[in-house]
Amino acid sequence: MDCEVVAIGTELLLGQIIDTNSAWIGEQLALHGINCRFQAKVGDNVDRIVSAIRIALDRSDAVICCGGLGPTQDDLTRQALAAVMGVELTFDEDRADLIRWMFRGRNRRMPDNNLTQAYRPAGSEFLETQPGTAPGLRCPVGEGGKQVIYAVPGVPWEMQQMVSVEIIPDLQRRSGVTSVLRSRTLRTWGESESGLAERLSERISELDELGNPTLAFLASGAEGLKVRITAAAPTEEEAVELLAAEEQLLRGLIGDFVFGLDDQTMEAVVLAALRERHLTLAVAESLTGGLLGARLSAVSGASDVFVGGVIAYTAQVKREQLGVPDGPVVSEETAAAMALGVRQRLGADVGLAVTGVAGPTESEGRPVGTVCFGVALGDDVSTFELRLPGNRQAVRELTVISVLDALRRRLTI
Amino acid sequence: MDCEVVAIGTELLLGQIIDTNSAWIGEQLALHGINCRFQAKVGDNVDRIVSAIRIALDRSDAVICCGGLGPTQDDLTRQALAAVMGVELTFDEDRADLIRWMFRGRNRRMPDNNLTQAYRPAGSEFLETQPGTAPGLRCPVGEGGKQVIYAVPGVPWEMQQMVSVEIIPDLQRRSGVTSVLRSRTLRTWGESESGLAERLSERISELDELGNPTLAFLASGAEGLKVRITAAAPTEEEAVELLAAEEQLLRGLIGDFVFGLDDQTMEAVVLAALRERHLTLAVAESLTGGLLGARLSAVSGASDVFVGGVIAYTAQVKREQLGVPDGPVVSEETAAAMALGVRQRLGADVGLAVTGVAGPTESEGRPVGTVCFGVALGDDVSTFELRLPGNRQAVRELTVISVLDALRRRLTI
Repeated sequence: MDCEVVAIGTELLLGQIIDTNSAWIGEQLALHGINCRFQAKVGDNVDRIVSAIRIALDRSDAVICCGGLGPTQDDLTRQALAAVMGVELTFDEDRADLIRWMFRGRNRRMPDNNLTQAYRPAGSEFLETQPGTAPGLRCPVGEGGKQVIYAVPGVPWEMQQMVSVEIIPDLQRRSGVTSVLRSRTLRTWGESESGLAERLSERISELDELGNPTLAFLASGAEGLKVRITAAAPTEEEAVELLAAEEQLLRGLIGDFVFGLDDQTMEAVVLAALRERHLTLAVAESLTGGLLGARLSAVSGASDVFVGGVIAYTAQVKREQLGVPDGPVVSEETAAAMALGVRQRLGADVGLAVTGVAGPTESEGRPVGTVCFGVALGDDVSTFELRLPGNRQAVRELTVISVLDALRRRLTI
Repeated sequence: MDCEVVAIGTELLLGQIIDTNSAWIGEQLALHGINCRFQAKVGDNVDRIVSAIRIALDRSDAVICCGGLGPTQDDLTRQALAAVMGVELTFDEDRADLIRWMFRGRNRRMPDNNLTQAYRPAGSEFLETQPGTAPGLRCPVGEGGKQVIYAVPGVPWEMQQMVSVEIIPDLQRRSGVTSVLRSRTLRTWGESESGLAERLSERISELDELGNPTLAFLASGAEGLKVRITAAAPTEEEAVELLAAEEQLLRGLIGDFVFGLDDQTMEAVVLAALRERHLTLAVAESLTGGLLGARLSAVSGASDVFVGGVIAYTAQVKREQLGVPDGPVVSEETAAAMALGVRQRLGADVGLAVTGVAGPTESEGRPVGTVCFGVALGDDVSTFELRLPGNRQAVRELTVISVLDALRRRLTI
């Protein structure tokens, strides 16, 4: 089963938007044993969209078109699909009602042109999954519909839901893929890619011999360094067994750096560890300005552990709100006072604090990237200082995962 | 003059690397008046690379191949180009010496396989520009070489130098293009894409007649909705004049929703407006958990305006730290109390507060997406309630830009 991706939008060709959707879809297809040998980008022009889709159909069994399903004049995917199928666009009262209903639910006036989204090529069907106001499409082509074109919106979260929930399972049914591909990702923090590769070098050579399972390193910045295991087997069970055995083996070699699996973020892991111990958490942030709290509260159900925090961006707020003593604010002493102060102030069990120099310029004579951390469990506070690489944004993000990892280690090791 | 981009590398199709090179090249081509109507991604396979290049040559005058020029076995661009040209690869002693010389200059031992990079298709020539150890190629095709294929490495800084210094001028010479293309982006908030399209529909039809300048809508989630004007003219000055005139005209139609231009983010605009008025800002965040402060403090130099805030994630913190009275926390009353409370508490001129339901489940019987805002200028506080679409992440991000826009309007309108 070969499936191509055609990303639609002049803004992609002009480089105004980076096409991350195609990469995400390509990864999902690969993880589910479906080949993606070509991907194309084309602008908002019916003839060129049609020609890009036809070229893809000449080579592959399926095509996923991404983008161009909005309500405006430069959203032309519906027309292009009708042309490829050689049919007219038909108005779907049923889906029109759904769209009207969605706007009502949001107390938003629906501009009339939104109803253009209720048109579909005759013989096609709308995807059931519709997270936003733009419906997705399934268009059978070739005799007996032996080929298929899917159309999804360019909005990432809408696209991702349609692909995961409906399109991938659909493609697997059609392909009758017997051997299943499964993968598991070990998420690590605290060791470089080359460092991990060194620790795993023997096993990597062994796996190069075996050919299955395979390993891949995925550097993911402030999300940590991911080590992905991919295993192929006749059945799901056997694939999962292979993954479990390999995970066991890898943990023996690099377990000290593994903080989570697959979609487990550092913040989710830390919240779970606190929840398990019936501990609540408060944060005090200087250079991160709220980023630490933002990441913690991004996790659903964080509120039973994370009570809140104080963004002490200026020295005055640090002293008045957190009782930080006079002296340099980029110091372990200040980090300790912030962690204890916010914990007591907000009545939490654990206090986490960061202060430092995000840049672009140095501060208090300390270079950009200098960060001090405070971790207070009750009144027992530990502090440390790090020098982080990168620009303002990188320093702020690396600060967040570094201090969370420090708390994780105090709780679990 | 049409020029396509073919990005080469299996890792691109697998989504292990995001293809930012094609976007960058597309932008450069557009800025220099060269059309880029298609872009393709293909894996490390000679036959498929050849077919991707042939398809591009059927449609366009020039092709830029990006990637696959390294020294390893899966670097196959050279072979593919030779196949497309129907010639052999020839060894170039001269370029081999350059490569040897570069390694010596870096005191690095040269692995033998690096000399494979000194092979070029017979009849092609190496690009003069060579920032790294991988040479780029210029391959004439078609009778009298009326078409051309360029090959550049996938390493961004090497690719960018070859494209800017040698390939773009080369393409402009070939096309005899004298016209320049310039664009300007109006960043808007508060009206849907279809709503803006409705307000602009007359002008859009006029421009469709004229053909220059052109308009494009770029939905950018919590970054707002962008309206990009692109103008072509014989000179830079005339292009900029066209842009200025069109901006004027569009502001007359949708100016009420325009908050910034090009790279100006909402947070940067709000901070600038406060700075101009010598006002300081404090934030009180419930459902956003720090995201509002994080976005404000992401702007370099925010600290002269943004003093900090209180992350009041639980009801208890709201009441104890911000003096919020008893009663439902998802309410305009609570938002008002939070805004006034944080402003007084942190001694800021302006207080901004958000409380609401991020999801995944409803709270206090209020549906997901219900958000209440408080904007306190001194003791004069205004509040309002919105119902935002999307999942937890979308609701949180839309909350941040919505409340910042509310403050912007209070300050500037």
